[in-house]
Amino acid sequence: MSFLYALDLIGTAAFAASGALAGVRRNMDLLGVLVLGTVTATGGGTLRDILLGDFPPFCFKNETYLYISLGISLLVFFQHHRFDAFKNPLLYFDAVGLGTFVVIGTGKALDFNMGFIGAVTMGIMTATAGGVTRDVLSNRIPLILRKEVYASACLAGAVLMTVLHKTALHPSLTASLAALTVILLRLLAIRHNWSLPKAKVPN
Amino acid sequence: MSFLYALDLIGTAAFAASGALAGVRRNMDLLGVLVLGTVTATGGGTLRDILLGDFPPFCFKNETYLYISLGISLLVFFQHHRFDAFKNPLLYFDAVGLGTFVVIGTGKALDFNMGFIGAVTMGIMTATAGGVTRDVLSNRIPLILRKEVYASACLAGAVLMTVLHKTALHPSLTASLAALTVILLRLLAIRHNWSLPKAKVPN
Amino acid sequence: MSFLYALDLIGTAAFAASGALAGVRRNMDLLGVLVLGTVTATGGGTLRDILLGDFPPFCFKNETYLYISLGISLLVFFQHHRFDAFKNPLLYFDAVGLGTFVVIGTGKALDFNMGFIGAVTMGIMTATAGGVTRDVLSNRIPLILRKEVYASACLAGAVLMTVLHKTALHPSLTASLAALTVILLRLLAIRHNWSLPKAKVPN
Repeated sequence: MSFLYALDLIGTAAFAASGALAGVRRNMDLLGVLVLGTVTATGGGTLRDILLGDFPPFCFKNETYLYISLGISLLVFFQHHRFDAFKNPLLYFDAVGLGTFVVIGTGKALDFNMGFIGAVTMGIMTATAGGVTRDVLSNRIPLILRKEVYASACLAGAVLMTVLHKTALHPSLTASLAALTVILLRLLAIRHNWSLPKAKVPN
Repeated sequence: MSFLYALDLIGTAAFAASGALAGVRRNMDLLGVLVLGTVTATGGGTLRDILLGDFPPFCFKNETYLYISLGISLLVFFQHHRFDAFKNPLLYFDAVGLGTFVVIGTGKALDFNMGFIGAVTMGIMTATAGGVTRDVLSNRIPLILRKEVYASACLAGAVLMTVLHKTALHPSLTASLAALTVILLRLLAIRHNWSLPKAKVPN
Repeated sequence: MSFLYALDLIGTAAFAASGALAGVRRNMDLLGVLVLGTVTATGGGTLRDILLGDFPPFCFKNETYLYISLGISLLVFFQHHRFDAFKNPLLYFDAVGLGTFVVIGTGKALDFNMGFIGAVTMGIMTATAGGVTRDVLSNRIPLILRKEVYASACLAGAVLMTVLHKTALHPSLTASLAALTVILLRLLAIRHNWSLPKAKVPN
């Protein structure tokens, strides 16, 4: 099992936990929690594969992603009070997932010969579309559209990877640098409570 | 016309009625009601076909589904007060649609060589994604994520069908057993007001 | 550059502006505004291409659409107060985009041998699905499902184009007539404050 694949599964688990917790908080029943956890963890990659025309999407080719998502969501459903103690570790795993998903998404889009904006979009989308779907299904304005340096960290990593892709750098070095950029930016944003500028709307 | 196809069209009509009624209640105009009815009736199968990579989706290959959805939605728009009297029959037709859609969705996924979770997911999705879209477009948390033994009945039927699929049982017997399971569970749930457990959230 | 392509880009810019303005009003950060503008401008055509099975979707084949959407969204983010003065012109450009998108969507669906309802649906969807997504992401009931002769103007144009398509009329004449129908209906609706009938719901 490659290192990237291991990180991918860790990220999947972290994303599933965040989705399942949102379901628990919204008073959903068992099945709702399973759906929300799974969609959060696999929705981004699924949307990417649909747009790339690669069928069936990754998680149906390798169901490991679905088993992990469902397993973690079950665990959250029955033991969600214990996850409160893990709030900080969860944020770190989530950051790892974010970096990994960006790198996997951007890399796959480049393999499919997408252009610059296409590759960057696919990278960001892989990492964030699951969370957007989680928020839409929970009847909220998606968090990443409103605040936090979250998608922006993905943007930075996806741009870096797309640019480095044209250089002579070894692919695994390119991927590592891009992933680390995302993870680092995200962790710094959490620690220092960074946020992007907003347009000033006169009341 | 096969028996399964007849049930499929009945289910389509029932789902369209439920979507169109939601539109009427939300004070939508004529076109909004048509859209909501049609999306509720055909959205699940369409999402399934997209994920399976089968283009164009079923309702564009055979527009009968779209004509029925639009016709029923028109009827609901102009005669919606009469549907109040049909509330109970509608629930039964809806249950028939649920069972039929699960069987059709699971069966198609198995034909496309999806794995266990994939086939079960496609079965549930075919029966429920239209209703989820209806609720998202109506700006509500999707009903099936919150309560009622609805998606759970689909889950039971989809699992049964996927398991029986590996046995020597005749496909039409397998399909009938799975569809009946869904319909029966759903009707029992309505009658006895069943619901799934929810996670206990303090406060 | 063909005349239709020029109109297409104008429509893209107008739709991006409307999406980005919605993001600004909803207090989204820079990236949220970029996402909302781009999704509004390109979401309809993207959904159409997914349903037609034409991958990757148009805006990833020709990234001009994405560059325009992102550029306009950036402009709106930093200069949104200036767009207030342009409110009326924006409505006209939006109407032009509406007509153009309907014609392009319907035409493409006919090229892909879709049936009558399929072609009409693709035409309406190309013009409206981006706005629907904008509203779902902003946590609102989609505007076009609630009021205004907006989707209805698209319906008229898409039906006209599909019908004329079977006649001996020259394709560019067919397209022009259909686009003008949409634009004219939309402008008349704005000026005279038209709306579609709603079902009467007894309180």
